[in-house]
Amino acid sequence: MTQSNVGVIGLGAMGLGIARSLQRSGFKVHVCDVRDEVVQAFAAEGGVACASPAMMAAACDIVITVVVNAEQTETVLFGDQGAVAALRPGSLVIGCATVAPTFAVELGQRLADKGLAYLDAPISGGAAKAAAGQMTMMTSGPADAYLKAEAVLAGMAGKVYRLGDVHGLGSKVKIINQLLAGVHIAASAEAMALGLREGVDADALYEVITHSAGNSWMFENRVPHILNADYTPLSAVDIFVKDLGLVLDTARTSKFPLPLSATAHQMFMQASSAGFGREDDSAVIKIFPGIELPKAQGKE
Amino acid sequence: MTQSNVGVIGLGAMGLGIARSLQRSGFKVHVCDVRDEVVQAFAAEGGVACASPAMMAAACDIVITVVVNAEQTETVLFGDQGAVAALRPGSLVIGCATVAPTFAVELGQRLADKGLAYLDAPISGGAAKAAAGQMTMMTSGPADAYLKAEAVLAGMAGKVYRLGDVHGLGSKVKIINQLLAGVHIAASAEAMALGLREGVDADALYEVITHSAGNSWMFENRVPHILNADYTPLSAVDIFVKDLGLVLDTARTSKFPLPLSATAHQMFMQASSAGFGREDDSAVIKIFPGIELPKAQGKE
Repeated sequence: MTQSNVGVIGLGAMGLGIARSLQRSGFKVHVCDVRDEVVQAFAAEGGVACASPAMMAAACDIVITVVVNAEQTETVLFGDQGAVAALRPGSLVIGCATVAPTFAVELGQRLADKGLAYLDAPISGGAAKAAAGQMTMMTSGPADAYLKAEAVLAGMAGKVYRLGDVHGLGSKVKIINQLLAGVHIAASAEAMALGLREGVDADALYEVITHSAGNSWMFENRVPHILNADYTPLSAVDIFVKDLGLVLDTARTSKFPLPLSATAHQMFMQASSAGFGREDDSAVIKIFPGIELPKAQGKE
Repeated sequence: MTQSNVGVIGLGAMGLGIARSLQRSGFKVHVCDVRDEVVQAFAAEGGVACASPAMMAAACDIVITVVVNAEQTETVLFGDQGAVAALRPGSLVIGCATVAPTFAVELGQRLADKGLAYLDAPISGGAAKAAAGQMTMMTSGPADAYLKAEAVLAGMAGKVYRLGDVHGLGSKVKIINQLLAGVHIAASAEAMALGLREGVDADALYEVITHSAGNSWMFENRVPHILNADYTPLSAVDIFVKDLGLVLDTARTSKFPLPLSATAHQMFMQASSAGFGREDDSAVIKIFPGIELPKAQGKE
């Protein structure tokens, strides 16, 4: 049996997990990233190092972009040494970045014009699930894209939601997830800030809320960062400046009001302007004045 | 063995569940409510009907108030035919309404001045858990109040959080839970509204979000009401006009900003002013213009 070749562009926490999962699933995984050291490290694990997306495309019929945003997606596909010019007709691009739905729609058309298939496929679940091949994918695209993608999706994701046969629906569902995620992180910060202001024990408050109707996935996941005073960025404040920005841009196109998203976006921008943009997104609590946050000392 | 007497004032969905749970736990349960028919119905189940809180207080050393707000709490305790004047010194009042923490503190002092113990004890969990004796209680108060309350709490709650020895902490944690609950309901509505506006399938969106990081207890619980077009008020829009109002009043006392709570409060007030105040709180989605909500036809 010959191994199928697949390319992964972008070896951040998610991309590296995807690359390893695909390798474990039996694919020959070609990788590239602006950081040469992570590319070489993955090559030492049995992957194939590529100097550019164009060089990867010469060897792969399926290329997965796991970069941060639309701008980077544009660069790795259409930029100097981008993948598209080198991909054979009939090849498939799977786009995992969180991007504006309109960008996903246009990208699908631009790739179709080159004879390439596209799957709009944002991902969710975090680095641990990516490493385990158990991510969630929010996908949409034409039937032929799904046909080509089938084995690769099975190798990288635990759950693949198929949201329709047109591009953009995957990205719409992803940004709606980000709307809720962003509002919930900001609400978690607001609730914990009020508790601290009112002299409620922060650990007890976390315990009660996580067992009550006020709970959210984000409250449960992010508030421990605040309690432990650990603002190491697993996902940064500036990611939500970007993602809630995409949410608001999408709604603005049809002049649709999103009062909570707009408020949460302002909170993340306030945190970023105050110098916390590269800290963990739970650092949005630092915008609240007049409270004393838990300190690292004395915590596990 | 003689049965201990305990009184429950207010036989709404929560109060009736509490009364039945206590009866099942072996208490002789005395009840009163402004609606005589529910009092008589409970008497037919073996309870003791009381014509007024004062008449209840003559027979009970423990009285539990399960009314809607501070105003009703005031009336049943201190109003005409209120319980307090008739309670024997050393008796205990357990206050379950969601009230301002400052009201709970003052109430504790006023009852202490009469020789009565008070437990600040808001409840959470909904009617089904109340009926099963499995509610969550967020409590605070002095040690002697807990001593007197012990058997009753065990008979009515699955989980009793003890948040400190001063009144108000229970109410503070409860309103912080309501802050999150209210923001999450409004955010659920905003997210579903954007999905509908963008042509995303509403059922698929619910399925994806409930398995993703954007999930919340309220999203999972309330969005099915929207999908089924069933706005029967399990908890009404006007409850969150009140509860987020309490949250904001509490923060205003110390001039503390709560941007998301303030925004969500405006959304519930907009829904109430538009005529949806007595509908289910998920009806806050009706403030979003330019979308077509799911209809009841064709749904299970």
